[in-house]
This record gives sequence, C-alpha cells and structure tokens, in this order.
Amino acid sequence: MYDLIIIGAGPAGITAAIYAARKRLNFLVISKNIGGQTLLSPTVENYVGYHYLSGADLIKKFEEHMKDYNIEVRQENVENIEKSGETIKVISDKGSYETRAVIIASGKRYKSLNVPGEKEFLGKGVSYCSTCDAPLFAGKNVVVVGGGNAALTTALQLTKFVNRLYVVNIAPNLTGDKIMRERLRQGKVEIFNSSEMLEIHGDKFVTAVRIKTGKKEKSIDVQGVFVEIGLVPNVGFAGIVKRNMHDEIMISRSTQMYKENMTSVAGIFAAGDVTDVPEKQIIVAAGEGAKAVLAVDDYLSKQKNG
Amino acid sequence: MYDLIIIGAGPAGITAAIYAARKRLNFLVISKNIGGQTLLSPTVENYVGYHYLSGADLIKKFEEHMKDYNIEVRQENVENIEKSGETIKVISDKGSYETRAVIIASGKRYKSLNVPGEKEFLGKGVSYCSTCDAPLFAGKNVVVVGGGNAALTTALQLTKFVNRLYVVNIAPNLTGDKIMRERLRQGKVEIFNSSEMLEIHGDKFVTAVRIKTGKKEKSIDVQGVFVEIGLVPNVGFAGIVKRNMHDEIMISRSTQMYKENMTSVAGIFAAGDVTDVPEKQIIVAAGEGAKAVLAVDDYLSKQKNG
Repeated sequence: MYDLIIIGAGPAGITAAIYAARKRLNFLVISKNIGGQTLLSPTVENYVGYHYLSGADLIKKFEEHMKDYNIEVRQENVENIEKSGETIKVISDKGSYETRAVIIASGKRYKSLNVPGEKEFLGKGVSYCSTCDAPLFAGKNVVVVGGGNAALTTALQLTKFVNRLYVVNIAPNLTGDKIMRERLRQGKVEIFNSSEMLEIHGDKFVTAVRIKTGKKEKSIDVQGVFVEIGLVPNVGFAGIVKRNMHDEIMISRSTQMYKENMTSVAGIFAAGDVTDVPEKQIIVAAGEGAKAVLAVDDYLSKQKNG
Repeated sequence: MYDLIIIGAGPAGITAAIYAARKRLNFLVISKNIGGQTLLSPTVENYVGYHYLSGADLIKKFEEHMKDYNIEVRQENVENIEKSGETIKVISDKGSYETRAVIIASGKRYKSLNVPGEKEFLGKGVSYCSTCDAPLFAGKNVVVVGGGNAALTTALQLTKFVNRLYVVNIAPNLTGDKIMRERLRQGKVEIFNSSEMLEIHGDKFVTAVRIKTGKKEKSIDVQGVFVEIGLVPNVGFAGIVKRNMHDEIMISRSTQMYKENMTSVAGIFAAGDVTDVPEKQIIVAAGEGAKAVLAVDDYLSKQKNG
C-alpha cells in the first residue's frame, strides 16, 4: 500500500514527486513519459531562473533533481482509478496499485483539427511537434495552424528552416505575446487571421491545404502542417472525479492551508494543466504540484491519527 | 504614466517582471532589495530544476534572467498607494509614480519574539539570518527559536559550526519536514518542545537565555539566539486593499482566465507570500507572479479598448 501515487511526470508531477520525497512519503510516479508537453516545447524563456533553454533541456534539469531523491517513474498508461473505503486503486496497462492518496497531474495533449487528411498524413507532413520535426522541413513551405503562444513559438522555430511560412488563425488577431508577434514579422511569413483549415491534400506526403479565409476558399501549396490549436486534458482514466465543461478536473481553492487541490473525491488531488486552474504555464503547474503534496501530507496525517 | 508597477522583487515580483517584459508592458519594479526572504535562506532544495543551492545563488539566477530583458529595479521604500479615477499613484521615500496597474509582491519579514533583551542584543548575539551570521558562532552554544522548516533549516546550518545547539519550540512537536527532523538528530542538538523564550540576558553580548519548558523555568548559557518563529506581511503601505486577520492581502481565485490575483481595488493585484495564498513556497510564489501579470495584461487591454 502506497501513501501516494502521482499520475504524470510533467512540471506538476515532478514538483509533486520532489515535495513528496522531502516529506518522506512512500510514493510512486506513473507516467507515459517524463516531461509531458514541456518536452515538445522548442524554447522555454519564462521558467524563472533559466533564461533560455529547450523544453527537453529543462526537463533534464528536473530529472536530475528527481535523481537526488531516487524517485522511480514507472512508464505505464493509467487506465482507471477506483476507490473502496479509504483505499484507492490505480490500474495501469501493466498492473494495479493500492494507495491512500493520488495526485492526478496527467496534463494535456494536443487537440486535433478533425479535417480530412489530418490522420492520413500524420508523420507524412502533419506534425504536432516542431521541436521534433522542424528540421525535416528545411527549404519547404509550411503552414502553422493556431494563433496563441504555442503556435507562435512553433512558427518562430520553423522560420529558421522553411522557405515560406503561413499561419492560419481562426481568431481575428494573433493572441500570443507581443514580443513573439513582433519577432514573427518577417518577409517569409504570411498570416491569415479569421481563417480555418478545411482539408489537407497529398499523395505520399502533404502537397497542399485548403483553407477558408474570411468568406473565400483558398488552396496553398505546402509540404508541412503544424497543428497548434490548443490542448485537451488527459482524463480518460479519471471518470471518478468531477470535471468542468472543458473536461478539466475541478479542484478546490482555499485560503486555508492544506485545503487546496482537492478533487470531488476524498484522497484524490490534482495539479497542473489537467485541472481547471486557468493559467497553463510551466511555473504555475510546478507551484500547483507543490501545493497538492502539502494537502496530501495533511490528509494522510489525519487518516493515520483518525 | 506606467502600465504597471511591481512592488517587491522576491520570487513573485521577479517572475511578474519577466512575464511583464515578455508582454511588452511599460513597467517599473520598486523594491527594498532583490531577493526578499529567499536571500536569507541558507539552502534551497525544492525549487524544481535546481537541486541544491543557497537562496542568494538562486536569486543570482533570477537576476540574470531579468537582465535579459533590461528590467530596472528601483531600490526604494514604498510608503503609500493612492487611487483617483483609473490612475494609481505609488509613493516611495524617493518619488511618486503614476501607473495604470500595480502588483503588490512585497513578501513577508521575520516576526520578532518581543521578549526583553531581543532588541538590545540584535547584532550582538541575536540574529534573524543564519546564512549571514552562522560562521560567527563557531564553537559557541546557540539557541534556535521555532519548530517549522525555517527553524530546522537554520538549526541544520548552525550544527556545522556550533558546539551545542538548543531548539526552543512552542508547539508540542517540530513541524518541519521529516527529512529535516531526521537530519537534526545529533548528539550536539537538544530540543525543547512545548517551550517558550522568556528573556535574553547578556553583557556586551548575549550570555544566556531564560526559557519556560512545560511548567518549569530554566536558564541556558548561550552566545547566540536565532529567531525563526514565522513571518509578517510587508503591507505598511497597502492600507488601500483589504487584508485578512493575518494582515495578508486577500486576492481572488477563479476558474476563469484573467480573474485571479485581484485585490479589493480594481487595477491593484497581488502575488506571493504577502497574499492569503496559504502555501509559502518559492515555486508557488513564482507561479503566482506569472498569474498576476496575465490578469494585469487583460485588465489593461480592456481599459484601452473600453
């Protein structure tokens, strides 16, 4: 029987793990990977204390920090959480674990466009990860779909490689940070606001996209499509806890110590991008991971004494 | 007229400054010092990504990060905040500044014991900063007052130097992290729980303390007294905003983007240890600084358009 199982090993889960280790809890981390979305981020410039590094490099620093405490991360897929009495069971594709408390920190994953061609050409021109795939598009024409910080970061990353870059943004204006919008003003970049993707064409690989811009339809010859239109929470296994209309796990806020980050089920806590905390930032998720462990530690100490 | 004035340059204020720079706001940071309480922390082991460094070294990393954005910190004491119409005036000992928004991130400061001898022997044996003063007590006997993480960190720091170490803790048990309580189990350390300080004696320097332990009074020969009994918010200038019973600034929580970290006065936001967010942790304060700027940026954009 564990004291705590942390599901997910992005910034929230890793911070929770480090705090749990310092509280000397008997705990386990279960996660598909170490790093979550941060792994896919080409550059992180706003994790205070590190001025410029890739998401993967930041995660390396986090992993080194975990090693100090010999924290074990089991790379498994969690499939369900059950509770009977005060015992919580976390069921993965490889096993089943009993625990007294859980922190769900499973983050989000990229939303797909749901347009014809998207699935067919995944890995054949369609990508959700410019860090992984940008160099493959050197000298080619590429479209980025989206208008927020993630889309702009991807677009800026791609400008270093591509011939022409198109941004297809459903909103009337780009919504990312001004500093990034300014950097993006380059001859090779063309921005279509109030526009949406209709279809992705290709043969073996992507050859063109059809978009609707304003009221007109238009075809653009591109060899790559980077989708950056937002994220959906990883909650397939978390039917046991209440979620909001965006499928984010609802957590408690409080001005009382130890009463934060609780879900609708006693003993199950949540932290980071998977929750209804609206600011999706690495530094915020890390703070939330710390808060969740303080609440868990108090919950466990009361169970023991009670 | 500034867009934003950030008061304080600890983890919350510095993070806010970096986020404000990335939003290209016209802003100013006013703070007594750069680092706040973190400067006084002998070791920080739970700021994720840096496994072991002094508070001062962590702040150096934060300062380097601010330099990337040419962020100016004016070392002044803020004395008052006034608001008339939509203009907010921040008044310091050196000047007066007009701004459209404010983030109060002025943190907390050490609480004093209020016992006879404490003021008289400040700097003559009485200290609130083991990082600064521990080496002065090599081979001496020292008492640490307190029982939480701050007190235990100070005590552990001191064990490297002193001959005998006493911990005087008002609670029935030490409340700091288990990992630190375990490290503190050493022959040279004696812990008095359910105990309080009555008086500090001395001549030119501290020579002894008188404590009440259980129902008995007792005198202990020591040359040093480190006070670690908690913190009070730096809000002397912030009479304009509502505070809770602990004098912490009350801020909004929300599941809606941009509606967090608001105080009772429109345009004035707050972040970090000075607020009623109960978890006083560097990583939490940093996250709160980021959240506050997201709310400020939205507030300003609505003022402009409205």
